[in-house]
Amino acid sequence: MGMWIGRNRKARVTYGFDEIALVPGRVTINPNEVDTTFRIPRRNAEPLELKIPILASAMDGVVDVRFAVAMSKLGGLAVLNLEGVQTRYKNPQEVLQKVVEADKSEVTSLLQRIYQEPVQPQLIAARIRQIKDGGAVAAVSSIPQRAQEFGAIAQEAGADVFVVQSTVSTVRHISSEYQSLDLEKFCREMRIPVIVGNTVGYDVTFEIMECGPAAVLIGVGPGAACTSRGVLGLGVPQVTATVDCAAARDAYFKKTARYVPIITDGGMSRGGDVCKALACGADAVMVGSAFAKADEAPGSGYHWGMATPHANLPRGTRIKVGTTGSLKQILFGPAEVDDGSQNLVGAITTCMGNVGARDLAEFQQTEIIIAPSIKTEGKLFQAVQSVGMGTK
Amino acid sequence: MGMWIGRNRKARVTYGFDEIALVPGRVTINPNEVDTTFRIPRRNAEPLELKIPILASAMDGVVDVRFAVAMSKLGGLAVLNLEGVQTRYKNPQEVLQKVVEADKSEVTSLLQRIYQEPVQPQLIAARIRQIKDGGAVAAVSSIPQRAQEFGAIAQEAGADVFVVQSTVSTVRHISSEYQSLDLEKFCREMRIPVIVGNTVGYDVTFEIMECGPAAVLIGVGPGAACTSRGVLGLGVPQVTATVDCAAARDAYFKKTARYVPIITDGGMSRGGDVCKALACGADAVMVGSAFAKADEAPGSGYHWGMATPHANLPRGTRIKVGTTGSLKQILFGPAEVDDGSQNLVGAITTCMGNVGARDLAEFQQTEIIIAPSIKTEGKLFQAVQSVGMGTK
Amino acid sequence: MGMWIGRNRKARVTYGFDEIALVPGRVTINPNEVDTTFRIPRRNAEPLELKIPILASAMDGVVDVRFAVAMSKLGGLAVLNLEGVQTRYKNPQEVLQKVVEADKSEVTSLLQRIYQEPVQPQLIAARIRQIKDGGAVAAVSSIPQRAQEFGAIAQEAGADVFVVQSTVSTVRHISSEYQSLDLEKFCREMRIPVIVGNTVGYDVTFEIMECGPAAVLIGVGPGAACTSRGVLGLGVPQVTATVDCAAARDAYFKKTARYVPIITDGGMSRGGDVCKALACGADAVMVGSAFAKADEAPGSGYHWGMATPHANLPRGTRIKVGTTGSLKQILFGPAEVDDGSQNLVGAITTCMGNVGARDLAEFQQTEIIIAPSIKTEGKLFQAVQSVGMGTK
Amino acid sequence: MGMWIGRNRKARVTYGFDEIALVPGRVTINPNEVDTTFRIPRRNAEPLELKIPILASAMDGVVDVRFAVAMSKLGGLAVLNLEGVQTRYKNPQEVLQKVVEADKSEVTSLLQRIYQEPVQPQLIAARIRQIKDGGAVAAVSSIPQRAQEFGAIAQEAGADVFVVQSTVSTVRHISSEYQSLDLEKFCREMRIPVIVGNTVGYDVTFEIMECGPAAVLIGVGPGAACTSRGVLGLGVPQVTATVDCAAARDAYFKKTARYVPIITDGGMSRGGDVCKALACGADAVMVGSAFAKADEAPGSGYHWGMATPHANLPRGTRIKVGTTGSLKQILFGPAEVDDGSQNLVGAITTCMGNVGARDLAEFQQTEIIIAPSIKTEGKLFQAVQSVGMGTK
Repeated sequence: MGMWIGRNRKARVTYGFDEIALVPGRVTINPNEVDTTFRIPRRNAEPLELKIPILASAMDGVVDVRFAVAMSKLGGLAVLNLEGVQTRYKNPQEVLQKVVEADKSEVTSLLQRIYQEPVQPQLIAARIRQIKDGGAVAAVSSIPQRAQEFGAIAQEAGADVFVVQSTVSTVRHISSEYQSLDLEKFCREMRIPVIVGNTVGYDVTFEIMECGPAAVLIGVGPGAACTSRGVLGLGVPQVTATVDCAAARDAYFKKTARYVPIITDGGMSRGGDVCKALACGADAVMVGSAFAKADEAPGSGYHWGMATPHANLPRGTRIKVGTTGSLKQILFGPAEVDDGSQNLVGAITTCMGNVGARDLAEFQQTEIIIAPSIKTEGKLFQAVQSVGMGTK
Repeated sequence: MGMWIGRNRKARVTYGFDEIALVPGRVTINPNEVDTTFRIPRRNAEPLELKIPILASAMDGVVDVRFAVAMSKLGGLAVLNLEGVQTRYKNPQEVLQKVVEADKSEVTSLLQRIYQEPVQPQLIAARIRQIKDGGAVAAVSSIPQRAQEFGAIAQEAGADVFVVQSTVSTVRHISSEYQSLDLEKFCREMRIPVIVGNTVGYDVTFEIMECGPAAVLIGVGPGAACTSRGVLGLGVPQVTATVDCAAARDAYFKKTARYVPIITDGGMSRGGDVCKALACGADAVMVGSAFAKADEAPGSGYHWGMATPHANLPRGTRIKVGTTGSLKQILFGPAEVDDGSQNLVGAITTCMGNVGARDLAEFQQTEIIIAPSIKTEGKLFQAVQSVGMGTK
Repeated sequence: MGMWIGRNRKARVTYGFDEIALVPGRVTINPNEVDTTFRIPRRNAEPLELKIPILASAMDGVVDVRFAVAMSKLGGLAVLNLEGVQTRYKNPQEVLQKVVEADKSEVTSLLQRIYQEPVQPQLIAARIRQIKDGGAVAAVSSIPQRAQEFGAIAQEAGADVFVVQSTVSTVRHISSEYQSLDLEKFCREMRIPVIVGNTVGYDVTFEIMECGPAAVLIGVGPGAACTSRGVLGLGVPQVTATVDCAAARDAYFKKTARYVPIITDGGMSRGGDVCKALACGADAVMVGSAFAKADEAPGSGYHWGMATPHANLPRGTRIKVGTTGSLKQILFGPAEVDDGSQNLVGAITTCMGNVGARDLAEFQQTEIIIAPSIKTEGKLFQAVQSVGMGTK
Repeated sequence: MGMWIGRNRKARVTYGFDEIALVPGRVTINPNEVDTTFRIPRRNAEPLELKIPILASAMDGVVDVRFAVAMSKLGGLAVLNLEGVQTRYKNPQEVLQKVVEADKSEVTSLLQRIYQEPVQPQLIAARIRQIKDGGAVAAVSSIPQRAQEFGAIAQEAGADVFVVQSTVSTVRHISSEYQSLDLEKFCREMRIPVIVGNTVGYDVTFEIMECGPAAVLIGVGPGAACTSRGVLGLGVPQVTATVDCAAARDAYFKKTARYVPIITDGGMSRGGDVCKALACGADAVMVGSAFAKADEAPGSGYHWGMATPHANLPRGTRIKVGTTGSLKQILFGPAEVDDGSQNLVGAITTCMGNVGARDLAEFQQTEIIIAPSIKTEGKLFQAVQSVGMGTK
């Protein structure tokens, strides 16, 4: 396993979504009859059941209160970022408007300024209550350094799920400047499910699972607005990352009989990418840019990474994704565009039907092939005319 | 066989047309003296003989009655789609005109509307009789769900070949909402040859052959106007798909002494692609976009997939291919364009001559190489100037 | 050796120029002190010695009498095509002018018309005498079908080298319509050296060498103006083709003690490509488009393949290469352009110096690496700004 | 180790920066607490300590006296080219201005003219004293043929480091026209550390280390303004080159207990590339184009290779990189651009933190993966909109 990249040194070959394809099954199933339920385990309660295995990313161009309510009602789950504009500003709308209107050359420094405003604890509680008042499941996220503080507030305010998220998560973080989060203790003491991320490796995922989270987020750097892979050279393509972490989940389950779902996060903009992630072993996916296109998204068709506002080393950019339809249309169709970015759930069920998978567990067993030509074979006209699979 | 794509999981490496090339032979033959006859077996009759191993796809921008007659007279076979505009509309011409004139942004919803008009059984019979009246072989197609009904009408009306076609065909389709087609029974009861597709795998192809079809169509998602590979992540590149299914055909022949030809369907726009498909083991090819360029094609230089009008999850797009010459010119030349899209039969016979193959059975034995550089080596000027192999 | 491309079928992996690079040596040599002499063996005479291992292709946009004389005086060898405009027209200049002025959309049919004019035997003799009168070595070429006839005329007129060239050459060509050239007999009966091509495989090259040619041309389809690889799907990338045929040459030499040089023909536009061909084992290279850029070239900066005018299945196109300097500058510099297309001989000697090769035989032993990133690593600005290695 | 590229001939597969990625660690570290010190050994003194492992290339668009002083004060080291305009012209500013203003079509010949002016020995001494007067470490470079002469002058004038640099360096250079530099004698006789380059191979690097240099430069042809790879076909991608030479360094250290650092030179324009080079085993990196973007750079946002002015065979080009900020900002941020070209040191420390490396020696042990999709996975919008990782 691995190729020589030079004298005495080998490297594994890893794969991304565009390099693989899924193989049709020997049995096919009517897509209306497949089951896409995703369950987030809870310690002292029935699992939280989502009808569709899709989460919306904790990004400011994607999720605000209104979006979170809409997403929950449609069967998915949106995560509100506790360190974004929603908890720094009482009226985030005008701040968002500035981001949208900023020129390409000044947007990085504008974001740096905007995110220097401190987070207001009372806004955390307020946003969560607004989501709950909307009749929705409330999921919120923070970085590890603030998890202790924000976690307590969020739980108190009625949040249903808490996400601890950083670019690279491990159980062992070394610092003498500040105290690292004790993940095991944190998961044990929180009464609501804790989702932890992001990670990409077998060993780290296994170690994180030993700390007791409800689920783990998979992916370093694939996001549409993220530049970590260019700025830091860091990351593992999502196919290999998902397969590796699925193996960790299965090994952990074999050892403990506790099933900790993994959620592939980032790099999926079309139905085909989502299908591939699930077939690689993900229990659910977390999607950002695809939802930034929704009428309901607060970014008005713009999208940016949470590492973009970093004061010193921004690792993201603002991209324009456009507004293409309602969230309902993006999730369930009818698709009015031809590029696979609408009706994501229809894509999942149709693909499940074609590979003969009755539920997500069977979908995870789909035969995968390495097929880089899948992107281009026969598609010259689509590429040249920017339609269908060639849409830009 | 296979590469590790992650922990505990391997994937086969698969290939598309652009990644391979054919190796010149040790013997060469005068191209005028090679035999390209393709035979579709019939149960109680001599095989249906086609002088050239090329079928035209059952797509509305390609085949109507006039086109079917022209194609048959030139030695090939065109398949009329029984679920397209020809059988939904008495005067399909004005509907086709609307598709051609529609703006890129509205064409998907227009197609969705157009294809909601129900199929009229009497038009099925009428179209078939028009083809027969033109002195041509009549081939028609439907999806499995309507094969029973339409097959009876078509046979009664004098059709010579019936094609049952869906995105992914298997022998075992599970549904409680509707009754699946019993393929074995259908093939047995039809008096005319039944061609079944599409499929891409060894096992499925073998199982389908056991149901008694006259031929099998190979290919999931390669079509020029198809977006299944992007929308669903599904498909196998055509080189590997053809090689695998040719192996199934040969194994089935070894077991039963019945030879069921395979027809590679989709992904071939130039002579070189057609030659590669045959060299990979196809007995014939089915081509769409290349014929949408014909003067005789009803789409006036536009081309769209049959899954494009899907009400909820369109899996295709409309592309513009232009009108470049007569069908005769596309099949037999003289080529007036320099991109390999005209004189497809001349390309086949010249290539057969250069590899030293006297007939299609020998052509299937051609040495193949993996040669991704074949597309670009020495071709910078053609690419930059959009001429020859760089034509867009 | 080979990868599975599908069930029961393997294919070799083959390489083109852009996928490899040459490794600097442990010893380096002053480039002024390396020897680039190339020798074409003659049966009853000393070998024909060329100071530089470069031939100009028998193409109408490259070689006419004036060009042939200039090339010979500079130490290389230009081949005049006996089936081009020079022997069909007394005043080829006006015909060439039409080709140059033709619109992209009509050039193929114009070429088809121009090349229907019959070849005039007396013009063959006249052109050869004009070259000889210029004090140059005269090399001319024909297709196998006319080799017997034109070979006699050419020899009589004083030609020094005769080239028999077709897209794919083998010793065994099957035809009942016409008599194939008996290559062994032809080589034996001609008094001047016969160069034969084109071929790409070990076995065929070995068989051709057994017929007694002075050298063999290597390459099917790589030419800048050739489209065979797209139209027919046929060809082997030049790195693998050259390595394979060099192995045949060495095996033939081991068996017979007769050294038959191989000349890699096509796909090389820059110095780096020429160096790679020689390092792969070529004894010399034949170059077309690079010389079409010379002030002396008859095509005025345009270039087209000899298969382009084919009446029924053209397998080439006309490209614009521009006129960038004198032939002397293209061969020996000083280079005024930054893309490697000038000073080809300087590139050869500098590269030989850097890999530590004193002569071409040592250069053929250079360590080669597979290095697709060599084209792009660090070169983003050159690509985006179309300078240096990004020149288009 | 190696693939068959043809009969009887194998070639190693080699890798460049864009084909690999770094894997996050099982342990992570606060980036503020990692150590990036790089040490250049000195024979009879403590090593020369650089706070950051980054050198600026000896190129005329990058380094002049002012730049060298600024770079040294920020903790890095800039090398002044003793054969550039700074030592040929008393007032290089006006010459530089001409290069900047020249049209693309005439810049090569302008550079050829400019660099024909002879180097003035008194200017060598003057420039070095100006750097020393600025309170900076002075590093200067020459080609091997002039090292003896210029080395003496430089040492006398107070230089701290002397660099002997040519496209391809070996210990054994054969020439009868001139006397080759005796590298072993030169290193022994110089009192200041001698850095030698460039090289790419294990054996050559080992042989050079045996001559006693303080460090070795790694890289043939990757530079942003270099065209050697196109013009000569020569070079090894930087990942493999660095890994191979790191192996030579480690083997040499094992044998002699003398640690000779290697400095990867060229092909790195963003933080991610620098991180990859260090992770591949480099002790430091040498960067050109990234610094040509500094306010302090003498090229005013233009950049060209030192082989570009070659009178006969230029192997470089002039590219425009633009002026994007101060040198301090490029090294330490705050980054105002989103493409990874600012805050290179922040990128190094953040990446070290994420892979869990406390110092450069640990960073060299980072797990590397082959991951060509890392450039594109999820990044369609960035590519199409030319932002972030798609910046051009």
